[in-house]
Amino acid sequence: MSFPAELVLKPIGIVQTAAVGDEVRDKSRLSQIIVHDEFAEALDGVSEFSHVFVLFWLHEISDEQRKTLKVHPRGRRDLPLLGIFATRSMFRPNPVGLTLVELVKVEGNVLTVRGLDAFDGTRVLDIKPFDSWDTAKTAKVPEWWTKLEKEKAQPR
Amino acid sequence: MSFPAELVLKPIGIVQTAAVGDEVRDKSRLSQIIVHDEFAEALDGVSEFSHVFVLFWLHEISDEQRKTLKVHPRGRRDLPLLGIFATRSMFRPNPVGLTLVELVKVEGNVLTVRGLDAFDGTRVLDIKPFDSWDTAKTAKVPEWWTKLEKEKAQPR
Repeated sequence: MSFPAELVLKPIGIVQTAAVGDEVRDKSRLSQIIVHDEFAEALDGVSEFSHVFVLFWLHEISDEQRKTLKVHPRGRRDLPLLGIFATRSMFRPNPVGLTLVELVKVEGNVLTVRGLDAFDGTRVLDIKPFDSWDTAKTAKVPEWWTKLEKEKAQPR
Repeated sequence: MSFPAELVLKPIGIVQTAAVGDEVRDKSRLSQIIVHDEFAEALDGVSEFSHVFVLFWLHEISDEQRKTLKVHPRGRRDLPLLGIFATRSMFRPNPVGLTLVELVKVEGNVLTVRGLDAFDGTRVLDIKPFDSWDTAKTAKVPEWWTKLEKEKAQPR
């Protein structure tokens, strides 16, 4: 068996969405994931799940941005300066995004999903079914996090 | 700005655990994540969360195993043959594991976590705080999945 010396990822598909800018954060929006033909067979059975995690390569993060260690969440100076592992910032050593989406429809190699906050052309790395073990019923979060959550819940 | 042509990951830390074999699946077990010194600062604020997602490079998956498209979940022939995107199999095009863990303690660059199903020496790629948006209250899963869930819930 040969184990890779470098940890290299290969895109398994690509995101298609009409959303631009902040519109990608709109959790009610639909996007498509076009899975590359060579991986189409690996989708067998996925339509039986209502929710899947999507892992994707965060769009247009530079090598310089990957060196970021601390950020104000969402760039907001009214929130504390934090280590990036305490945030969901896009600027991370390994710019891999993780989003739970609702799986609306699977047609051939095309997945229609709701709530994927990824830009058009984003390279998709993995699709994993949502497991009840992936959730915490009583999670404790910092105050700044709760503040952002409440703002997200506001109607636009 | 320079964007990488290849999607290359760099480990940000390593797993330490006394668990071997199937013991790593024991959700009550503690493991340590030793974050490399250069990323220690990126942990600031993480101790305020009770739960984090850990992304890690699945241990000793060969290039050949990455070409797997279909598996019986857990290698069990009594369960259907499924596309790997409908399973949490380790054999996937991009062998990145995802586990939600309880964050028990943070001391310097060492995180003590509960429920990380990763082997000793596993390379850690990312730590992301758990977001209430990462959960689905009413997720639909296939029958074979529920069957496995029930088995997991049995006391050992």
